[in-house]
Amino acid sequence: MSLTKLFHPSSVAVVGASRKKGQVGREVLTNLLESFEGDVFPVNPKADRLEGLKCYNSIREVPAGVDLAVIAVPAAIVPKILRECSDSGIKDVIVVSGGFKEIGEEGAKLEGEIAEISRKEEINLIGPNAIGVISTGSNLNASFAQEMALPGNISFMSQSGAFCTAVLDWANEVGMGFNHFVSLGNKAVLDEIDLIEEWNQDDNTDVILGYLEGIERGSRFIEVAREVTKDTPIVVVKSGKTEEGASAAASHTGTITGSEDAYDAAFSQSGVIRAENIEELFDFGSILAHQNPPKNKKVGILTNAGGPGVMAADALEGYGLELAELEEETLSKLEGVLSSLASRENPIDLTGKADEEDYREALGYMIEDDNVGAVLAMSAPAAIFSYPELTEILAEAREKTDKPIVGTLMGGQLEPEAQENLKNAGVPNYFDPARAVRSLSALVKYGEIQARKRAKPTSFSVARESVAEKIESARGSERKTLGLESMKILEDYGIPTTPARLARSAEEAEDIAGQLDSSVVLKVDSPGIIHKSDAGGVRVGVSQGEVGKEFREMKERLNRNRPEANIKGIRVQETVEGEEVIIGLKRDPQFGPLIMFGLGGVYVEVLEDVSFRVTPISAPEARNMIESINGYPILKGVRGNPGVDIESLIDIILRVSKLADDHPDIHELDLNPVIAGPEGARVADVRIGLSARG
Amino acid sequence: MSLTKLFHPSSVAVVGASRKKGQVGREVLTNLLESFEGDVFPVNPKADRLEGLKCYNSIREVPAGVDLAVIAVPAAIVPKILRECSDSGIKDVIVVSGGFKEIGEEGAKLEGEIAEISRKEEINLIGPNAIGVISTGSNLNASFAQEMALPGNISFMSQSGAFCTAVLDWANEVGMGFNHFVSLGNKAVLDEIDLIEEWNQDDNTDVILGYLEGIERGSRFIEVAREVTKDTPIVVVKSGKTEEGASAAASHTGTITGSEDAYDAAFSQSGVIRAENIEELFDFGSILAHQNPPKNKKVGILTNAGGPGVMAADALEGYGLELAELEEETLSKLEGVLSSLASRENPIDLTGKADEEDYREALGYMIEDDNVGAVLAMSAPAAIFSYPELTEILAEAREKTDKPIVGTLMGGQLEPEAQENLKNAGVPNYFDPARAVRSLSALVKYGEIQARKRAKPTSFSVARESVAEKIESARGSERKTLGLESMKILEDYGIPTTPARLARSAEEAEDIAGQLDSSVVLKVDSPGIIHKSDAGGVRVGVSQGEVGKEFREMKERLNRNRPEANIKGIRVQETVEGEEVIIGLKRDPQFGPLIMFGLGGVYVEVLEDVSFRVTPISAPEARNMIESINGYPILKGVRGNPGVDIESLIDIILRVSKLADDHPDIHELDLNPVIAGPEGARVADVRIGLSARG
Repeated sequence: MSLTKLFHPSSVAVVGASRKKGQVGREVLTNLLESFEGDVFPVNPKADRLEGLKCYNSIREVPAGVDLAVIAVPAAIVPKILRECSDSGIKDVIVVSGGFKEIGEEGAKLEGEIAEISRKEEINLIGPNAIGVISTGSNLNASFAQEMALPGNISFMSQSGAFCTAVLDWANEVGMGFNHFVSLGNKAVLDEIDLIEEWNQDDNTDVILGYLEGIERGSRFIEVAREVTKDTPIVVVKSGKTEEGASAAASHTGTITGSEDAYDAAFSQSGVIRAENIEELFDFGSILAHQNPPKNKKVGILTNAGGPGVMAADALEGYGLELAELEEETLSKLEGVLSSLASRENPIDLTGKADEEDYREALGYMIEDDNVGAVLAMSAPAAIFSYPELTEILAEAREKTDKPIVGTLMGGQLEPEAQENLKNAGVPNYFDPARAVRSLSALVKYGEIQARKRAKPTSFSVARESVAEKIESARGSERKTLGLESMKILEDYGIPTTPARLARSAEEAEDIAGQLDSSVVLKVDSPGIIHKSDAGGVRVGVSQGEVGKEFREMKERLNRNRPEANIKGIRVQETVEGEEVIIGLKRDPQFGPLIMFGLGGVYVEVLEDVSFRVTPISAPEARNMIESINGYPILKGVRGNPGVDIESLIDIILRVSKLADDHPDIHELDLNPVIAGPEGARVADVRIGLSARG
Repeated sequence: MSLTKLFHPSSVAVVGASRKKGQVGREVLTNLLESFEGDVFPVNPKADRLEGLKCYNSIREVPAGVDLAVIAVPAAIVPKILRECSDSGIKDVIVVSGGFKEIGEEGAKLEGEIAEISRKEEINLIGPNAIGVISTGSNLNASFAQEMALPGNISFMSQSGAFCTAVLDWANEVGMGFNHFVSLGNKAVLDEIDLIEEWNQDDNTDVILGYLEGIERGSRFIEVAREVTKDTPIVVVKSGKTEEGASAAASHTGTITGSEDAYDAAFSQSGVIRAENIEELFDFGSILAHQNPPKNKKVGILTNAGGPGVMAADALEGYGLELAELEEETLSKLEGVLSSLASRENPIDLTGKADEEDYREALGYMIEDDNVGAVLAMSAPAAIFSYPELTEILAEAREKTDKPIVGTLMGGQLEPEAQENLKNAGVPNYFDPARAVRSLSALVKYGEIQARKRAKPTSFSVARESVAEKIESARGSERKTLGLESMKILEDYGIPTTPARLARSAEEAEDIAGQLDSSVVLKVDSPGIIHKSDAGGVRVGVSQGEVGKEFREMKERLNRNRPEANIKGIRVQETVEGEEVIIGLKRDPQFGPLIMFGLGGVYVEVLEDVSFRVTPISAPEARNMIESINGYPILKGVRGNPGVDIESLIDIILRVSKLADDHPDIHELDLNPVIAGPEGARVADVRIGLSARG
């Protein structure tokens, strides 16, 4: 699929070009005529001429060879028009008409119809219910937006039409330009993935920005975005984050998984930078459009005002950046510039006494310093030099270096000349140092994304058939949750287990222990007892002969100490020592299998300290998943504790990822706990739930 | 002390009014003459006339009755001039001259001198090294800033002069006005506390904003701000947050306490709203200057564009606000407005079909809804109505209700008429819904601060003398850390204890147990063993007769299981069950005793889940301190667990607060662990460090 004709048509037909000004179809026609240089054909059976052009009765009558049609007719006849377009060889179409999915069931049916036609006839369709498409490279404004976009190297798409018009209005005012500007509408056919693929091939798009409300083809999105973000940064605002009233579910995984976790995981894995709000979206877009990621995340701050320099330094940590430690040589050179240097340390405060030449020289030294990855150039007004002068210095510096430079020239709006200098040099400028630092952090983040290893999923030899048989057999007996075979399924996939079985009586405990070789661990199973050991609910190293006695003593002790606790029984388990972690699986409707990792117990339940990734998970992603929980130091080892075997946890995560991908029947899975020790990790308990079958 | 003459002088002398334009003293003179209506007296022995005014040789020659002097002479002669001012009866002075503390030791000495003179002569001095003071109510620009401020009801102070000039430049452009605008300079005499006290009395100041780099009189700041914030909101950006390279210290409290924690605690306790950056400072200031806190934190969102409405709803949660659930009656009325209502749910999307009247009507219904505390009024451009029209509707609505209204009229800059409407109505407006929501959250926060109980510290009867004697006795033997008497000190202050003593041998364990009445708990003491019980390092309910045997078994088991762990010994303790918490004390140079609270072990060490308050702590503050840690649900009780006696923890915190205030010799204190159970909390171990004596 190529969308060349959508963005670079040589001729455009407007079907439903209204005689009435202000009507959507007429607005599209007017906008097209404003700047588009190719042929434009209005289609309206009720008019002879429109805007000085011959009007056609139907698309069939339009001269052959039209590349793009914009359809603005009532919803009910869109399918008919679409067929006519196809018959006339037009395979690129924008439907601006509303009256589809957004109005309910009837509209959804119509929308299904046009999607079906498009698929059959291989039509690239934007919309319906879209504002349209703007492409500055071909002077194309095939939309009913009130303005044309300025040219630029950012391509933008939005699922909200109203947001499109708001952005365009604002962008034209601040001078932000776009290569392509697309209102996605209802995404009946083309969606964000198609545009990302197309724009990645486009030499004139250096950054892709998107406002998205939902992603339907989740796995494909990740697959495509993961490749594209090697070369082209993607920044997305995803709205619809909060799920008010999400109720506490039964399983650990269920409680805190929402599809929001899946979006976060998907963006993280595919290298899409998620903007938290509109300000971030365009701040990140602007800097990524003009500057390259720095070699390191150490920032040199040059200022002529102490206080603001400190504010900037403050902001670094919060955005994951660091204050660069300047080389001794740089410091000496800087001292040569100005004897009034406020301190021999980054941030370098030249004080209000510095003139233009001092700033230029100091900036040069800072840029040359190998410890400095990026420079934040700050100034207060009323300095000895003017902002037009200072911005010239910044522009010069940009020519000499690849290191990013961001400005914090504080005060009111800059003089037009200063603005022009910054724009030409691609240097963003903010009053607020924190905002400048945040923009810089997007560059750093993108650098990390580019440098990221895009590893293939690890391949394992697993007993896939054996698992399939166990699932089938459970299906046969109409069970929704697997029982004893769950542990076997894990073993089929090479996941080490160490079953902990629940004993309800001393005799049962002795039985279970008898089947194990070693001494055992007894651990109470009671939802009300959080710190089992403090309550006397844990005994380790219990020899075979002592199991019955210890069971009875523990039961008595707990009945005495915790009369209110509901004690389900006592788990008997081979002696394995280590940290309890949880690995869970839930299926997300958009993104498929979503794997959760966290430390056990209160870490998951109270602190919600968990991380999510969607399958297939690569080894580096699994590692990153483990490292990204707050409690990671506990696993890594703190205060002389040796820590656990991280590799074995990675291995389990990867095998669970494969299990989930191989067996769509597995709907939920909860490895809880997995006992991770210095020598390896083993699953002590598992619960597998099957999906309902249509 | 009254600062009336500083802000509302009837006459001003400028000492050091230079003949040379652009010099600081001359700029002050020019600025004064621009708008000030009282008498202005330039003082400069080298000039006869300046700016058309007679120039005086010295301040002594100036006619009697001058209210305010601005001093702009070289640092070295400032003390002399200051004395002359005082002799002439001038008790309000602004020193704009630099060359004091900021240049090093010599300057600091000079600064000490002027502080001394001011104290002795009762001079209210702003500076030195300040830009000056602007007070719009008296048309006073006693500064060398390039512009006069616009009038307004916000008073602003800044420790950074450069930041003052930047803010003024920007504020004049966006139309933000100030009542007083003060560059604090080096704060040799008057500081932020003096201004807060003064401005609280000032009818024309409705909000106090500050940029501060440090607060020297910490306790006094809290005392004053706590009172002022009942009536006047204070918003502060405090810079110098990050302390790069703060190394891990020995004690738990030490590790994660920094004076930054003290600032956070102080702002929280005194009701000062801390802005994270400049954007927040002025966003919060603007809304607090014009609107009252809502009755609840439920927000009604009215929009004509669906996507942006969702973005706004998204932002609510992050800022602690909620989506209002509209009353059935409101929903019915709204449905009456527009049949095209996109959904019968807040956010109310009127869709692009709504006209001016529809919006007005819908807004009215939303405001009348008792469930709605505040309204976010949103619109995309290209709607049927214009922004000047919509802003009129918002202004009308503001007249009818006390409920806050914030605008999100998206697009580029608003028409001047629309801007004027919003300004007059005190409705802030932002493109980014997230920013609008953030502003609203400041109002909600201030409402909570106003509603807060300002409780007196609880009084206890304690054995103060007995503690003093113990400290003296330790001093006598030149000890810096208290030993066994530490537990006694806690008991003197009514803090319940349950000593856990370290046994290094089975015999020692038996001895310790023998001194206790009940069965005991044995617990290993080893920094390398995080989960003591999982390692077999905990035994509860050990009867007196079994202590020796259990000690030996535990030792063996641990040597086998954890050969690498450094085992200090095994603690023997009365049987007490519960959660381990830590209560610590450290002295902050600015704010005095800083109390830390957190859950024990990894919660403090790894997750840094702790809260801080400065003394004296009131009971509501202690409760808030406990509730504000992430692990609070563990204490409150989760999953059937009864939780712990929070009141007993509050009691201990209050008593520790009193202990710290009563005995400045106690430099550090670490109650670790405190065992908190359902029936009370008891301190199991304590470490008290004494401060060095000069």
